[in-house]
Amino acid sequence: MTLHHVGYLVADLAAAAEEFFCLGFTAEGDTVADPVREVSILFIRSGGTLVELICPAGKDSPFAPLLKRFKNSPYHFCYEVKSLEETERELLGRGYLPVKPPEHAPALGGRMVAFYVHGDIGILELVEG
Amino acid sequence: MTLHHVGYLVADLAAAAEEFFCLGFTAEGDTVADPVREVSILFIRSGGTLVELICPAGKDSPFAPLLKRFKNSPYHFCYEVKSLEETERELLGRGYLPVKPPEHAPALGGRMVAFYVHGDIGILELVEG
Repeated sequence: MTLHHVGYLVADLAAAAEEFFCLGFTAEGDTVADPVREVSILFIRSGGTLVELICPAGKDSPFAPLLKRFKNSPYHFCYEVKSLEETERELLGRGYLPVKPPEHAPALGGRMVAFYVHGDIGILELVEG
Repeated sequence: MTLHHVGYLVADLAAAAEEFFCLGFTAEGDTVADPVREVSILFIRSGGTLVELICPAGKDSPFAPLLKRFKNSPYHFCYEVKSLEETERELLGRGYLPVKPPEHAPALGGRMVAFYVHGDIGILELVEG
């Protein structure tokens, strides 16, 4: 299992991206609107690290409440795995709690993702490889 | 300027490190106690990404209040720059606010670091050289 990206919640995607470009990041692809989760997403890269900028599309977005705690901050690590089902079994055995059932992620080409929380490291996302 | 590491605040360094090792991270060096900032720090790596696990040493640590918001979560990106002074000038020109004066970081071999905040991307650290 390896780190795939770092999720970074922002309140203004264009302004945040512009600042990250000044800091040496480059865009990986275009901004993708995810109508199911009501967020806009842009992947950016610096060196060996891929970062997912995530911006809630409005006050009713399921991601909007996260802005209270994580506004303009990194907030989760995502790991690439061969099998979501197999890795989920391992994680549950180590005390992770699933946040919601796995779903397709439009910004990752429709790949399946799932979120979990752990008492010692917080929020974790898996993306199936 | 390139990303140097992602800072990750944890409440229990040993427990968090053990979990990150299960997720494929490896340690870079040993845990370093920083008596000035009253934190314990361990660098870990997955692929091209270096992560700094930071754990406040006690309730009186200047980092302890951060646990309220960022407990067991990534919370800042650190960028490596040639000159702190020169880069600080650029950052201030783009609206960054300095958090405190630059200081030596024992966990980075005594290199100078400084923290800033920006309205669109939050907390940013610089490490010189």
